[in-house]
Amino acid sequence: MITLAVDCMGGDHGPRVTLPACRRFLEQHPDAQLLLVGQSDALAGFKHERARVVPAAEVVGMDDPIEVALRRKRDSSMRVAIEQVKDGAAQAAVSAGNTGALMAIARYVLKTVEGVDRPAIATQLPNAKGGATTVLDLGANVDCTAEHLLQFAVMGSALVSVLQHVDGQPDPNPTVGLLNIGEEVIKGNEVIKRAGELLRSAAESGDLNFHGNVEGNDIFKGTTDIVVCDGFVGNVALKTTEGLASMIGGFLKKEFARNPLTWISALFALPVLLAFRKRIDHRRYNGAALLGLRGLVFKSHGSADELAFRHALSRAYDAARNQLLQRVEARIAHAAPLLNSVAATVVTPA
Amino acid sequence: MITLAVDCMGGDHGPRVTLPACRRFLEQHPDAQLLLVGQSDALAGFKHERARVVPAAEVVGMDDPIEVALRRKRDSSMRVAIEQVKDGAAQAAVSAGNTGALMAIARYVLKTVEGVDRPAIATQLPNAKGGATTVLDLGANVDCTAEHLLQFAVMGSALVSVLQHVDGQPDPNPTVGLLNIGEEVIKGNEVIKRAGELLRSAAESGDLNFHGNVEGNDIFKGTTDIVVCDGFVGNVALKTTEGLASMIGGFLKKEFARNPLTWISALFALPVLLAFRKRIDHRRYNGAALLGLRGLVFKSHGSADELAFRHALSRAYDAARNQLLQRVEARIAHAAPLLNSVAATVVTPA
Repeated sequence: MITLAVDCMGGDHGPRVTLPACRRFLEQHPDAQLLLVGQSDALAGFKHERARVVPAAEVVGMDDPIEVALRRKRDSSMRVAIEQVKDGAAQAAVSAGNTGALMAIARYVLKTVEGVDRPAIATQLPNAKGGATTVLDLGANVDCTAEHLLQFAVMGSALVSVLQHVDGQPDPNPTVGLLNIGEEVIKGNEVIKRAGELLRSAAESGDLNFHGNVEGNDIFKGTTDIVVCDGFVGNVALKTTEGLASMIGGFLKKEFARNPLTWISALFALPVLLAFRKRIDHRRYNGAALLGLRGLVFKSHGSADELAFRHALSRAYDAARNQLLQRVEARIAHAAPLLNSVAATVVTPA
Repeated sequence: MITLAVDCMGGDHGPRVTLPACRRFLEQHPDAQLLLVGQSDALAGFKHERARVVPAAEVVGMDDPIEVALRRKRDSSMRVAIEQVKDGAAQAAVSAGNTGALMAIARYVLKTVEGVDRPAIATQLPNAKGGATTVLDLGANVDCTAEHLLQFAVMGSALVSVLQHVDGQPDPNPTVGLLNIGEEVIKGNEVIKRAGELLRSAAESGDLNFHGNVEGNDIFKGTTDIVVCDGFVGNVALKTTEGLASMIGGFLKKEFARNPLTWISALFALPVLLAFRKRIDHRRYNGAALLGLRGLVFKSHGSADELAFRHALSRAYDAARNQLLQRVEARIAHAAPLLNSVAATVVTPA
C-alpha cells in the first residue's frame, strides 16, 4: 500500500480541483491511500474508504513570502502534508502551493540527503521523439557550482530511472546532457566547463550516463533523457517556452476566429488540432519533483485542473512505489568518492 | 546614399542566396548601393549600376575555428566586408557567416566604442502584441557583470530607437526589462540584483526607460521592447524556443499527414495555417546586430533564404540610415558618469 499526503488547499483552485482529482486517483490506484490535509470543513464532504482527513488550520497563500509560510503558518496544509512524510505516515507529499514556500518548508522539515548541498526541482517536458525530457534545476538555485550540477545530474538520473515515461517504460540508465551554448567541450563559462569535467568523471566511474553538452533546442528534440542546468537558466528556459507556446496558441485561435470561413475550416481541422493539443498538453507533464530531500515531495502547477493534479499524484505514486528516495540516496552514496574529492578540492582556497 | 558591404560568400548557401537577395534589395531601396565582397568568379554574373564587386580570395567556413578565421584567412570575404566599414567605404557590413568568427573579426578590425567593454548580439523575436521584442546578449558573452548588462541595456535602447518595427514606427524611448526568475527586486543572483540597481539609476538619470524585472514568458508577451540578459541565458532561451517551435511545426505536419481525411482538413485550414506561419515567420526577424563596435555589422542566420537575407540587409540599411552608430556612441557617452562611477567601484578589490 502506498500512502500519499495531499495538500488539498494549495494551488489556485484548492479543494475544488484537488478533491475530484483525489477521487479519480483512488479509483485508478487500488493499492493507494490518501491523507487529505486541510481545513476540516472544506474536506468534510469527501468520503472514501482509502482516504482520511488530516486537519490543518492554515493555508499558505500563492503570494505569501517564504518567511510567512515558514515561520508564521506552522499549521498550514502544506507543512502538515510534508510532516506526514517526515513522520512516516506517508511516502510522498503533493502540493500545488507556491514553489518557494514549498521548497523552504520541505527543506526545513525534511532536511537534505547526505551528500546533497542543495535540493533541486525537476520537471518533464514533451519532446519531438514522443517522450519526455527531464530538466533540472528549475528555480531552486540561482547560483550553482559545478559540484551542484553534478549532484543534480545524479539525482535526475535516479528520478528518470523510476518514473514511468509518458510513452514507454522507465530507463534504468538514462542519458544526461549538460545545457550549454555549444556542443564543443570548450564552450561555456568556467562553471560549465568544470561541470563537464565532473560529469565525464562520473560517467567513467559508472555514476551516470553522460552524453555531453547539449543546447537549448535539444530539450525539445529529446537528444538526452535529462538536461542539467542551474536554476536561473532552467527557469528562464521553461518560462520562455511557456510564453512561446501561449503566443502560438493565441495566434492559432485568432486566425481561426478571423471570419466565418476560417471558423468552418477550424471545424474541419478540429480532430487534427485536438490530437495536436493532446500531444503537447502540459497537464500530462504536471508534477515536478523536489529532489535531494529526505522524503518525497511533488509540486503541481498552481493552476492545475483535475486532470493535471491527478498526473502530479500519479508521479508521486510512481516515485514512492519505485523507492525513488532510496535510489537517490544510493546513487549519491555511489558518487560519494567523486563528490568528496570535489569537496576536498573546493576547500582549497581559490 | 547608403552603402552596405555584403559578405556574399557566407552562410549555408553563399552567392546562390545572397546575390538574388541583393538584387531585390537594390530594387526596393533606390538610395542604396552595395559592395559585393567575395570571390570574383562567383560574383562575376551580377550586374547592377549601384553594385560593384570587391574581391576577396578566401571564405570563412561555417565550422572554421575562430583562430583560423582571424589569423589564417586574412583575405576572407567576411573580413574584407568589415574592412570596408572601417575604411569608410561602407556604412554597415552584413554576413551570414559563422557568428563566433564574425564577432571576433569585427572586434579585431573595428574595436569597441569608448565606454563599452564587450560587444553584444541583439536580435528581435515576434511577440503576442504583433510587434517584436529585442533580446540581448545572445551568445557573445558567457559571463557578464552587472555593468555589462547596463551597457547592453543602453546599446539595445539605441538599436530599438532606430530600427523600423515589424509593425509600426520606431520608438524613441523603448522600455527595457531585466530578465530574471521573478518580478520582485529581491529575486535573482547577485549579478542580477546589482544590475537591477544600476538600471534603476540609469532610468533616474534619463539614460533609459527601465520597466523592471521580467521573466522568460515576457519575451513573447511583449511586456517590454527590450529584454537584457547575459549571453549564456540569452542563447539558451533563444535555442530552446527554436526547439519548441520546430517540435510544434513537426507535430502539426505529422497530424495533418496522418490519413486522407486529415489531409483534406489541412487543405481547408491552409489559409489559416499560412497566415499563422507568416505571423511567426522567423525570416522576417532575420538580422542580428553586433552592438558596441566602431562600425555597424549585421549577422544573418546561416541558413537564411533570399527573403530572410533581404530582411538582414534592410535591418543594416535602417541602422545606417538612422545613424545607429552615432546613437550608440551618444547614449553610451550620456551614461558615462554612471558607467564611470561603476568602473571606479569595480576597481576596488572585491
